[in-house]
Amino acid sequence: MTITNDFTHNLIVKRFEHGSVADREEKVVAERSISLFVNGNETVRLMALPDQIEELVTGFLFSECVISKNENIVQIQFNPAAMSVEVRLAEHIQPVFNDKIRSVTTGCGRGLTFISALNSSFFRPVTAETTINPQTVIDLMRKLQRKSSLFHDTGGVHSAAVAVADEILYSADDIGRHNAVDKVLGWLIRSDRLTQETENSGMLLTTGRLSSEIVTKAARGRFTFLISPSAPTSGAVQLANDLAITLIGFARGERFNVYTRSERVLLP
Amino acid sequence: MTITNDFTHNLIVKRFEHGSVADREEKVVAERSISLFVNGNETVRLMALPDQIEELVTGFLFSECVISKNENIVQIQFNPAAMSVEVRLAEHIQPVFNDKIRSVTTGCGRGLTFISALNSSFFRPVTAETTINPQTVIDLMRKLQRKSSLFHDTGGVHSAAVAVADEILYSADDIGRHNAVDKVLGWLIRSDRLTQETENSGMLLTTGRLSSEIVTKAARGRFTFLISPSAPTSGAVQLANDLAITLIGFARGERFNVYTRSERVLLP
Repeated sequence: MTITNDFTHNLIVKRFEHGSVADREEKVVAERSISLFVNGNETVRLMALPDQIEELVTGFLFSECVISKNENIVQIQFNPAAMSVEVRLAEHIQPVFNDKIRSVTTGCGRGLTFISALNSSFFRPVTAETTINPQTVIDLMRKLQRKSSLFHDTGGVHSAAVAVADEILYSADDIGRHNAVDKVLGWLIRSDRLTQETENSGMLLTTGRLSSEIVTKAARGRFTFLISPSAPTSGAVQLANDLAITLIGFARGERFNVYTRSERVLLP
Repeated sequence: MTITNDFTHNLIVKRFEHGSVADREEKVVAERSISLFVNGNETVRLMALPDQIEELVTGFLFSECVISKNENIVQIQFNPAAMSVEVRLAEHIQPVFNDKIRSVTTGCGRGLTFISALNSSFFRPVTAETTINPQTVIDLMRKLQRKSSLFHDTGGVHSAAVAVADEILYSADDIGRHNAVDKVLGWLIRSDRLTQETENSGMLLTTGRLSSEIVTKAARGRFTFLISPSAPTSGAVQLANDLAITLIGFARGERFNVYTRSERVLLP
């Protein structure tokens, strides 16, 4: 396995095809175990693409309800040799993770949101009256998919992005769909843009399937729109409906389905 | 949202397509929060497709290294109204989950395998000398994809299966790729087939991406082959190589790539 750069590895594989076999060079996406230390204590290890690590860690802590804004983090230091990140929190922040009832995938570790991932009472519903043109949905998803050269090279990543109007402000790739969304949330926190630009017109784009946990993350980021080329689950539809988020799935090519709050999508 | 059965919900969505819009009935896959009580204590909540729940829970406990065989479970009781599962373990089994260093996705909760998901020393390498015909790989993946009527209906699930020779013994769907594999492991445990049929010639099929955590689960189930239509990560390739598992990715239509231990795939 040759390491080409930090994000892909080149290797020789045997490609079997229509009854023949040949050696072939392929790229695979890099996966690392990233240790997160909070106030000196190792808290989690994240299996992730080792890129945009400060955003990943910030977004993870935000998703887990440990922090709510950038000021809650005093210092964040990445050590590439150890693949570890040291985070020091502001004094009044309690880095409590809920260890008793553990979530299996990423959710609010304190047990508030995750435990009630299908119970929307923890979040305020979105009140934005923003609308979007159907063509914008189509264009944004195309832009997101063009952005990910890693996906084209390896087929092994999910992408996520934040968009306002018809512009992608930030995008991220990761081997996991939760991580990719966390990176986007982390960027919003770190750049203090969470309330300014996203509260009313923010669109969260993701290439991953839409489960209730992804809707929870969208709600945590106060997004009005959540858009994906993949399918939603019943839990995602229910939660998005309760939280008044416009949920768009199967956004592929020239079409998409609107599952909830379709009044925000302008009729053609 | 009309509940059609336990596994899908019917709902009316707005389908935007090529500049027009129409109401359309769509199925979405059911997602439930399943509470797992171990010896009376709530331990985790799994967001999952509410099917094959005993297998899911058994496989989860096995993946987390809480149990190693069916006898370790004295009783398992599912309460559909509460969506809860009560598991009573044999007296000598300590239901210790590692709460200190938490894994974000499913891994060995005791911290042994997950923490060293990229460190293979916890597992014995596979020593099987079984071989497989290229056509078998192609046929099995086709069979797996035909089996999943849920995927055809909803586009929102991953499938996993165990196969021996050219036969699928058991398959499972879930909204998460980890859960689907756990259901397969759970079935193996519950039917006491783990060592008999899979140790030497077992194939773990999955439709999900191949990250190191999925290889860890394959190793936990002593599978010789791990096959998917999706891409592997660098961590998966490294771990499969260390554990002498034959890792096959991009198994689509008439082709596939063999990333590790290709000597087990017969040349055409």
